Amino acid sequence: MSNHRNFNDTFLKASRGEKTPYVPCWYMRQAGRSQPEYRALKEKYSLFEITHQPELCAYVTRLPVEQYQVDAAILYKDIMTPLPAIGVNVEIKGGIGPVIDNPVRTMEDVERLGEINPAEDIPYVLDTIKLLVNEQLNVPLIGFAGAPFTLASYMIEGGPSKNYNKTKALMHGNPEVWFKLMDKLGTMTITYVKAQIDAGAKAIQIFDSWVGALNAHDYRRFIKPVMTRIFSELREKNVPLIMFGVGASHLIHEWNDLDLDVIGLDWRLSIAEARNMGITKTLQGNLDPAILLAPWPVIEERVKEILDQGMAQPGYIFNLGHGVFPDIQVDTLKKLTAFIHEYSSEKLGQ
Amino acid sequence: MSNHRNFNDTFLKASRGEKTPYVPCWYMRQAGRSQPEYRALKEKYSLFEITHQPELCAYVTRLPVEQYQVDAAILYKDIMTPLPAIGVNVEIKGGIGPVIDNPVRTMEDVERLGEINPAEDIPYVLDTIKLLVNEQLNVPLIGFAGAPFTLASYMIEGGPSKNYNKTKALMHGNPEVWFKLMDKLGTMTITYVKAQIDAGAKAIQIFDSWVGALNAHDYRRFIKPVMTRIFSELREKNVPLIMFGVGASHLIHEWNDLDLDVIGLDWRLSIAEARNMGITKTLQGNLDPAILLAPWPVIEERVKEILDQGMAQPGYIFNLGHGVFPDIQVDTLKKLTAFIHEYSSEKLGQ
Repeated sequence: MSNHRNFNDTFLKASRGEKTPYVPCWYMRQAGRSQPEYRALKEKYSLFEITHQPELCAYVTRLPVEQYQVDAAILYKDIMTPLPAIGVNVEIKGGIGPVIDNPVRTMEDVERLGEINPAEDIPYVLDTIKLLVNEQLNVPLIGFAGAPFTLASYMIEGGPSKNYNKTKALMHGNPEVWFKLMDKLGTMTITYVKAQIDAGAKAIQIFDSWVGALNAHDYRRFIKPVMTRIFSELREKNVPLIMFGVGASHLIHEWNDLDLDVIGLDWRLSIAEARNMGITKTLQGNLDPAILLAPWPVIEERVKEILDQGMAQPGYIFNLGHGVFPDIQVDTLKKLTAFIHEYSSEKLGQ
Repeated sequence: MSNHRNFNDTFLKASRGEKTPYVPCWYMRQAGRSQPEYRALKEKYSLFEITHQPELCAYVTRLPVEQYQVDAAILYKDIMTPLPAIGVNVEIKGGIGPVIDNPVRTMEDVERLGEINPAEDIPYVLDTIKLLVNEQLNVPLIGFAGAPFTLASYMIEGGPSKNYNKTKALMHGNPEVWFKLMDKLGTMTITYVKAQIDAGAKAIQIFDSWVGALNAHDYRRFIKPVMTRIFSELREKNVPLIMFGVGASHLIHEWNDLDLDVIGLDWRLSIAEARNMGITKTLQGNLDPAILLAPWPVIEERVKEILDQGMAQPGYIFNLGHGVFPDIQVDTLKKLTAFIHEYSSEKLGQ
C-alpha cells in the first residue's frame, strides 16, 4: 500500500473545507478494546509495550482502517506520551487512568519541567509514523496531542479528576504559576506535534478533552493565549488542524476564532445548531457512541440526520461524539462506514 | 423563629421575577461536609440515620442558614430518598455513591415498580419539613426531587456512570420500556413533591443532574414529555419551581419552554450569555465553586461580575454553579453571603 497513486485524500479535502465526492469518516478510539484482535494482543502486551514497538503499534493503528474502511488512521498512543520526557512520572493504572506521583503545583515544580527532544525521547512514535506513512497506509495518518489544560489537569491533580479543584485553584489563585506551566506545555506541544508532522502525520487533532469544565470567561483568560500560540506555530507546517473536547459546546465560539481548520463536536450540539451559532470551520462529528448499542434502524435514522446536516455545506467529516466504547461491535462499525459512504455519495453525486 | 412576622421572602420574590431590595442567595449543598458541625455529627450517625431523625435532619438543614445568613434553606436529604418506596434497593456507598443491586432494565422490571405513599413511606421527610417550617425557619424551605432521567440513570446502570451506556441503549433501543419507566418515575416525582409542598416546602428544585449527557434532540423526544407533565401537575400547588442540571447549557432552551419559574445554571454559561440566548425565566447561579478555593480578591471580582449580570433585570438568585465542595471554608461562605447582600443592596438601592 506504499503506492500513493491510490492515496485517499477525501478526509484532507473535507478538513480544508473543499467539496468531496462523499463524506469521509473515522472514529475516535477506532483502534482499541472494541476490536477482538486488539484484546488478544493486550493479553500478551501492555499499552506501554505496544506503543514502544513500531511494528506492533502500526498494526494496531492500521487494523481499523482495514476492517472498517475509514478514511483516516489515527496514531495509536496516549495523550500522556510526551510527559515522561519533561519529567512527569505517568503510570497508566487499569480502571483508574493516568496517575502521576510527582504532581506539579508550585513554581518550583513548573521550573523543574524539562523540554522534549522527540528524536531522543520518543523515537518509537516517530518510527511508527514513518512505517505507517511510507509503507502501509493509503489514507492520511492523524497525529495528535493533549492540549495544555487537559495535560495540566492530570499533572496538578495527580490523576483523573471530577471537579478539577486543584487545577482551578492554581489557575485562579496563582496565575503566574499557571501561565508559566501553560508556556512550558505549549512549547512541549508545539515541538511534539511538529515532530509528528515531520515524520509524516498528515493532520493533527488536539484533544482538550476536559476543557469544557471551564466557562468562556476563564477560557479566554487562561487557555486561549497558549492555544493561539500553538495553532499559529503549527500553521507553518500546512496540515489540517483539528480541535476536540468533550462537553465543550459553550466554548466552540472561542475555538472558531483560533487559526485551526476543524472543530470536533461531541454529540451534545447538532451540526445544524453549531452552524446556526455561526461556526464557520469544517465540522467533525457527532454521533453519540451510545447509539451504536441500539438496533441498526435506530442508528441509521440518526446517522442520516447527522449526514444531512453535515452535507448542507462543504467541510464536514463524520465521526462519533466521543471514543468508541469497548462493547461496540466491529460489525456495527463496518456497517456504519459502508452506510456513510453509500448514503453520502448518492446525495453528493459526482 | 416560628414568628412569621420576620419571614424573609426575598428568595420567593426573586423566584417569581419580582423586584427585590437585594439579591437573595443560597448554596447548593450548603449543608454538608464543608461544615465542621456536620462532620462531627457524621462521626456518630450515618446519612441514613440523620435523614430519618427529624430533629437531627432539621438541625443539619438549618445550620447553614444560621451560619451563612442565606435566604433559603434546602431540605437535607438525597435524591435517592423516594426510590426504596417503589422497590429499588439503594445503598449509598462511601467513595462511590448510590449503588442499586436490583437494576431496572426490562419491561418486567419496570412493571414491578410500585407507587410511593409519602405519609407511610417517608414520614420522616414530612416531619422534618413541618418542624423546620412551623417552628424553626424564617426563610423559605426548598424541597427537592431528582428528575426521572437522573434517577433512571442510577436505576438502569446500577450506580453512578460515566457514559450512561445502558441508559441510552435502553432509551434508543427500547422506547416502550423507557416511556413506561418515565411514566412511573413521573408519577412518583409528582406525588413525592406534592407531599413536600403540603408539608410546608415553599419552593421546589428539580435536580436533573446528569441530563446534560443528552442532546436537545433526545431531550425533546425522551425527556421533555415527562418533565412537561411534572411541571404542569406541580403548577397547581403555586410554589416556585426550579430546574437544575450540570453541563446542561445546551438544554436550557428546552427548559425555558417548560412551565417552571427558575433555571439554575452551572458555571459554564454566564448569566449574560443565557439572557442573550433568550432565556426569560428567573436565573439562579452561577459561581464556579472551585473559585471559592482562591484568595478573596479573586472571589470578590468574579462575584461582582456575576451579580452585575444578574441584577440587569429582576428575577435573579445567587447560587453556586454546583454543590459546595467539602474543602470550602465556612468563613468563605459567610463572607460571600455578606458581600452578596451588601453589594447588591447598594446597587439595587431602596
